[in-house]
Parts: sequence; C-alpha cells; structure tokens
Amino acid sequence: MRRLFFTTSLFFICISLFAQNEDSLFIRRIANEILLNGKAYDNLRELTRNVGARLAGSPGMVKAEQWGLKTMKESGADKAWLQECMVPHWVRGGQDKAEAKYNGSAKKALNVAALGNSEGSGSRGVTADVIEVKSFDELEAKKDQVKGKIVFYNYHFNPTFIPTFMSYGDAVRYRGAGPSRAAKYGAVAVSVRSMSHSTDNFPHTGSTNYDTAYPKIPAVAIGLQDADWLDGQLQKSPVKVSLTTYGHFLPDTIGHNVIGELTGSEFPNEYITVGGHLDSWDLAEGAHDDGTGITQTMEILRTFKALGYKPKHSIRFVLFMNEENGMRGAAKYAEEAKKNNEKHIFGLESDAGGFTPRGFSFGGKPEQLEKARSWIPLFYPYGVYEISRGGGGADVGPLARLGAAVSELSPDSQRYFDYHHAANDVFENVNKRELELGAINMAAFIYLVDKYGW
Amino acid sequence: MRRLFFTTSLFFICISLFAQNEDSLFIRRIANEILLNGKAYDNLRELTRNVGARLAGSPGMVKAEQWGLKTMKESGADKAWLQECMVPHWVRGGQDKAEAKYNGSAKKALNVAALGNSEGSGSRGVTADVIEVKSFDELEAKKDQVKGKIVFYNYHFNPTFIPTFMSYGDAVRYRGAGPSRAAKYGAVAVSVRSMSHSTDNFPHTGSTNYDTAYPKIPAVAIGLQDADWLDGQLQKSPVKVSLTTYGHFLPDTIGHNVIGELTGSEFPNEYITVGGHLDSWDLAEGAHDDGTGITQTMEILRTFKALGYKPKHSIRFVLFMNEENGMRGAAKYAEEAKKNNEKHIFGLESDAGGFTPRGFSFGGKPEQLEKARSWIPLFYPYGVYEISRGGGGADVGPLARLGAAVSELSPDSQRYFDYHHAANDVFENVNKRELELGAINMAAFIYLVDKYGW
Repeated sequence: MRRLFFTTSLFFICISLFAQNEDSLFIRRIANEILLNGKAYDNLRELTRNVGARLAGSPGMVKAEQWGLKTMKESGADKAWLQECMVPHWVRGGQDKAEAKYNGSAKKALNVAALGNSEGSGSRGVTADVIEVKSFDELEAKKDQVKGKIVFYNYHFNPTFIPTFMSYGDAVRYRGAGPSRAAKYGAVAVSVRSMSHSTDNFPHTGSTNYDTAYPKIPAVAIGLQDADWLDGQLQKSPVKVSLTTYGHFLPDTIGHNVIGELTGSEFPNEYITVGGHLDSWDLAEGAHDDGTGITQTMEILRTFKALGYKPKHSIRFVLFMNEENGMRGAAKYAEEAKKNNEKHIFGLESDAGGFTPRGFSFGGKPEQLEKARSWIPLFYPYGVYEISRGGGGADVGPLARLGAAVSELSPDSQRYFDYHHAANDVFENVNKRELELGAINMAAFIYLVDKYGW
Repeated sequence: MRRLFFTTSLFFICISLFAQNEDSLFIRRIANEILLNGKAYDNLRELTRNVGARLAGSPGMVKAEQWGLKTMKESGADKAWLQECMVPHWVRGGQDKAEAKYNGSAKKALNVAALGNSEGSGSRGVTADVIEVKSFDELEAKKDQVKGKIVFYNYHFNPTFIPTFMSYGDAVRYRGAGPSRAAKYGAVAVSVRSMSHSTDNFPHTGSTNYDTAYPKIPAVAIGLQDADWLDGQLQKSPVKVSLTTYGHFLPDTIGHNVIGELTGSEFPNEYITVGGHLDSWDLAEGAHDDGTGITQTMEILRTFKALGYKPKHSIRFVLFMNEENGMRGAAKYAEEAKKNNEKHIFGLESDAGGFTPRGFSFGGKPEQLEKARSWIPLFYPYGVYEISRGGGGADVGPLARLGAAVSELSPDSQRYFDYHHAANDVFENVNKRELELGAINMAAFIYLVDKYGW
C-alpha cells in the first residue's frame, strides 16, 4: 500500500512536473510574443495622444469607445461589441482658480482642481478665511470656528506605509467625505491636500461624495507645494482664499463598455473576464489610470490570437466605462451577466498602473487561492512573487457576487500616486517594458485558469 | 532525551522569534527614520545639480570629493577622510559629431557620443562608408569588406531577457571589444548601437577596451532611433558617415575615495563596508549611476546615528572613485585593507540604480547565503523577497578576495538602461521613495550582519 502510494505519488508528481514544464514553455511563448511583437505601447500612445482625456459623458468618452471597439477587433476578437449603459455626466465647466490673500495685500495663485462630482462656486466664486485641520478629529474640535470659512484638510499621505495604496486608503476619506463634514458646520468651501507622495505641485482630483443632508459646497484638491505653503503661511497670518470653480452635472447620458470575446472551445458558456477601465479623469491623458490596464487587456487578446491559443472557456476582454465617478459600466456588465444567467469563473483586472508587476491580489475561496499560489513559480521569472488575499479591482468586483474568483494585478506602487488623477498622468510616464510585463503575467494567469479551472 | 530536545528547541525557537521581533521593530525604526526624515533625496539633488558630472580626473571629480567629505561628516561619521589613488584622466575633448550622407546629397545628423577611453578622430574627422554587422559572427563573415569602412555594430539589447542586466551582459562586448575587433580588419572607426531598451535617441557611452595589437580607432555609441534609421537606410542605399571625436587621455592624476567610519564597539578591527561610486560619466548628472548609491550609503550612516545605533563592528561608508573607467578606487581600497591586515567580513554595494528594491545578489559561502536568506522575512515588508547567488558589485568585489562576503542591492531593473551612461541620467528620473526603500533594505542588511555576524 505504501509502495503503491509512493508509485502513484511519483506518477502524479511526474505529470505535474511535465505540466509545469509545458506551462512554463507556453508562458515563455506568451512573453516572447509580447516583448518582441507587442502592441500595447503603441496602442497606449494612440489612446493617450489621439483620444486623450475621456471622462464619462464627455466627447472624449465617445471617441474612446470607438477607438476601443476598433482596436478590440484589430486585436483579434471573435466578436466585439458595445454594451450600453447610462452614465453620469459631470463637467468641470471652466478653469478652476484659487488665489490666496495674506499679510494685508500679498497675493498668491494656488494650484487647485475641483474634485470630481463637486458643485462649482460659479463665476462669482467664494472668498473666505481659511481654517486648517489635519484630521476629522481636529475638525470636530474646531467645529465652532468653521462657519463661513474654507476648510483646508491638510492630512498627509502617510510615508511610513510601504505600499502606497495603503496611504491612499487611509487618506481618501478626506476627499470623499470631507466636503460634507465641513458643510455640516457651515463651511463655505473645502480644499483637500492632494493624495500623493509627489514632489511636484499638480493637484490630484478624484470623486467626492456629498451627503445630501448638507449644502453641496465647492471642493478642490490643492497641489502639495501649495498645501505646504498654505500650512506655513497660516502659522504666520490669516489667509483669505478666493475660489472659483464651475463643476456641475448634466443629465445622465449614454456610455458603453467595450467588450471583445474569444469563444470557448469546451465551455463556451463559462466566462473568464479580463479588463480595465476606459474612462479617465478630464485633467490628463489617463495613461496609468487606466490606459495601461486597457492596452494590457487587448494585448492579452492579441497574444492569444497570435499564438493560436484556443481557450476552453469564453474569455471576455472588457474596457469598462465610468469607473472613476460612478461605476455604472461595471454594474451593467454584472447585471447583464446575471440576467443572462452566465457562469463567471474568474475576473481579472489591471487598474493600479503600468508598473513592473510584483503580485496579484486575489479574492476567492481558500482552495482557489491555494491553487493560484501553486502557480507562482510560473509567474516568478516575470516578476510576480506573491498572491495576496484581497479582492479584484472595482470593475471585476461585482463578478464576485456571481460566484467568480476575482483578482487584480499588483504592480510596484511607489510611483502610482505621483500621477494618479493629475495632469501629469501622460504617456511619457509609462515604461514600455513595465507595461508589457504586466500583460505577460495577466495573460499567464488567464491561461492557467482557462486550462485548469479551479 | 526527546523531551529535553523538544524543550531546548522550543527555547531556541522562542529566542529566535524574540530576536526576529526585536529585529523587525528595529528595522521598522530604520524605515521610519528614512521615510520621515530622510536626507538621501536632498543630498542627491545637491550632488546632481550643484556638482553634476564627475568623471575621474575632471574638475567635477574634485568638487564631488569635497562635497562627499562634507556630506559624510554631516551624516555623522566618527571619522571621515579622503583615500588617495591615481586615476586615469580621459577627456571627451570636444563635441562629438556624426553626419550621414546618403542618396547622393541627402544629409542627416546622427546622435552619437564617443565611447569612454576611446581615441578621437581629431578635428579632421573620419569619413567613410558604413558597413553594418549585427554580430561578431557577421563581422567575421564580412571581414574582407571592412577595410577603410566604419563598422556599425547593430546588436540589439535582447528584449526577451527579463532582468535588463542580462541584456547588458549580453550586449556590452560590442562596446568593449568591438572597436579593436573591427580595427583588426582595417576598419577606420566604429559605431555601436546604444545598450538600452529606451524609446528615445540618447547615445549611451561607457568604456571601451582597445587591444593594443591594433590601431586605436575612433568609436562612438549611437542613439537607438538613429541606429534604426541607419539600419533602414543601409538597406536602401550606401551611407557615408563623417565622424568627429576628440577623446584622449591626459596623464594620470590624483583622485580619492571618500571614506566615513563608525567605529565598532566590540570588534573595531573587523570591517563592514557599504558603498557606491562617486564618479560618473561626463554626459549627465550621474543620478542613477551612481548618485543614488552614494546618497543611500550616507543615508545609512545618518540613520544609524539618528537612531543611536552603536555597531559592534566598524562600518565603513565608502564613495569609491573611478568605477566607470578604471576601478582604481576599488583596487586602492582593497590594497590598503590588505596592507593594513584589516579583517573584512562584509561588503555591500548599490550600483544598479535607485529603483524599488526587489532583492540582493550575494557572493559568499553557502552557509552565509543560507543565513542571509533566513533574514528575507525581515526585508519582505520593504520590497526585498529574494537573495540570489551572485556577486557584490564592481567596487566591493575585490573585498571577496580578502575573505569578505559581498552583496549588491538588486532594484527593479526595467528602467535602469533607459538612463545608463546617457544625458538623461538626471535627478528628475529618480523617485524619492524608491531611493529610500533601497537605503532601508541596505541598512537592515548591514544591521543584521553587524549584529549576528556570519
């Protein structure tokens, strides 16, 4: 019995080694195809330079959808289509401006950007004394002094967290909830320190969420250098700021997810989804957020076709719409999947920048996580060395509720928030090979899940 | 007996866990000090902007040595000094120029830089037809056509190697040996495709090594876009290139290693060395090569002092001179160590750019490697997940011959050769946190070796 067990084990070990070797060879072919003939970087150049900013509802969105559909077809989808969804239509509406007056007559222009979804001051602007708080606790302590003021949330991105997404998770509540919490005490506007470790002065926008119980006061992000200046000046003298913003919502409009499919040879009705989001903030080209995720997604499709890989399951390549300020595309995709009774086994996303991959975060059953981790030796030569318990990204997240395992690429995070939601999120700040390494590891993951299932 | 063994084991396991916990807490203190109060980035700005290029023998070298000594003292060295060594004194001597003539009268300026240590053409220049070879094999096959020509080595950086240092190791022979191998067959000059994956047109210089058996012909690196243009044009028509370079050697001159020391409390006569190189090529500020290694080195010193850490062994912080084109500083340091009968237990170097660390390469006895690997859980939160069998860098390498274990920081390598030895190796291309993460992991490694020895 023992002997039989031993022999059987050896048999399975041999099979397993053979499979690993076959897999490592195929993943090497994926890597070579992407590194030698890759189109992700060229596609990213086109998207960022010829399409540019593409916030939901904007003319850029429409252009991006057409570009996405064309590129999806060129990348070799068996079929490709637009999936309609209603999207919010927020517009900046004009040039955000802020000017500080201090020491009597001294003036200084501040680098600000209205927060996404915020209501503008209109052309008359808001002028008021600034009150600085470093935290919500300090806001509560000073609540009696807030009325009629502009609240300046000067909460720092915590440098002692090593993954920068931890700093973001920690700080983002000031952007999300800060305006309404200040409005509750009678503030007339809010300025939030940009969520970034950067050394420059770009303001970093992003969604805010008003609590409808309070007035929707104007709210801006301020660049780090100007935030530091304001902090220093307030220790010397009162500062009055005049703030002019024009943000407002137009009626919801029609947007689309762009979907390409390779139809499965064995399980055509079981789906693997890989994607990123097509929309971007209006301030820049949306290179790392999320042009890289989009172009990696289509690069995986192109590579599978180039290698003649016929997936067992149907693979959907999805450019989600409206991740930034509404998540309507992701909701629509999951809703349709549910309505059509689709079986989704895996959703993989890239929305953390086009930097060298280090790992994946993973949400699924413990045995699925264990299986995914057994593949780490196959990813390792391409930079991925860990699969951490976590979730998918925002866009594939809803698929988890349909029973799919979900995952997100975890690239090196140190530079991501230097560019995130700011005007410097441009093509030049993406490295071709780092982008390609992400696509390689994602393609390998899709291939392994498709081949072995869970 | 078994029980005693178990109890004893448990005792040692507890001790070991306690030690690991104590170590992880101290390394957390190191990290916080560097991330919150770090001076590496400010020092790098000073070095790159106020000192700038600093090739051995140049006025920039002298300025850099003075800056290094001052900064070493400010960082808290118990003692700091300059260690004299004779260095080669190569100068570019003028503006490198290359112009292509093709299709009869069409002309195009090519972006070139003379290779370090190469002999210039002088102001009369060299004008000759270009013959392209993709490899030494092709050179040998075409050896009868080489006479009187300019040989264009168009050997590509191999994109399928994932660590870019493998591509460099593969391609660098064309820069090193290419000129003399072409001169052997009568070539009058050589142009080498720059060793880079970059998408721009900067030429990347670096040392060449003439074989004294053949004429020392002019040799340049050519930018990748111009290399591709030349390759394409040569398929359509002959191309004549006029090349003008002025490189030459002046007599050897005096340079210095900059050395700082924290004297050991228990083993003052046993040494741990940590360093990078102070010299840089003349074309740029030498930010990643190796301003980052230099400033990380002094940051470790500053951090140990700030935390009140008293090392058991003497720790030497060394800014080596002349790594780029002679290695005289490293040779001198090892020579003095040998002469003074110093016992060197460890040498650690940073000379692979200031990018997010992924690991260390390590040269030492198997049991030392095993011990170093047992510390990986302590590095892991700061990005280092592997210690690979390899060597130290070029500057601490000679210490291995004195019995020291040697190691080099292995940062993410994807962007290193975008800047290496080129005019874009500037301060802006270094990320503050990536630089700091390197210093943290290096400081942790030094601390662990100092505390536990081998």
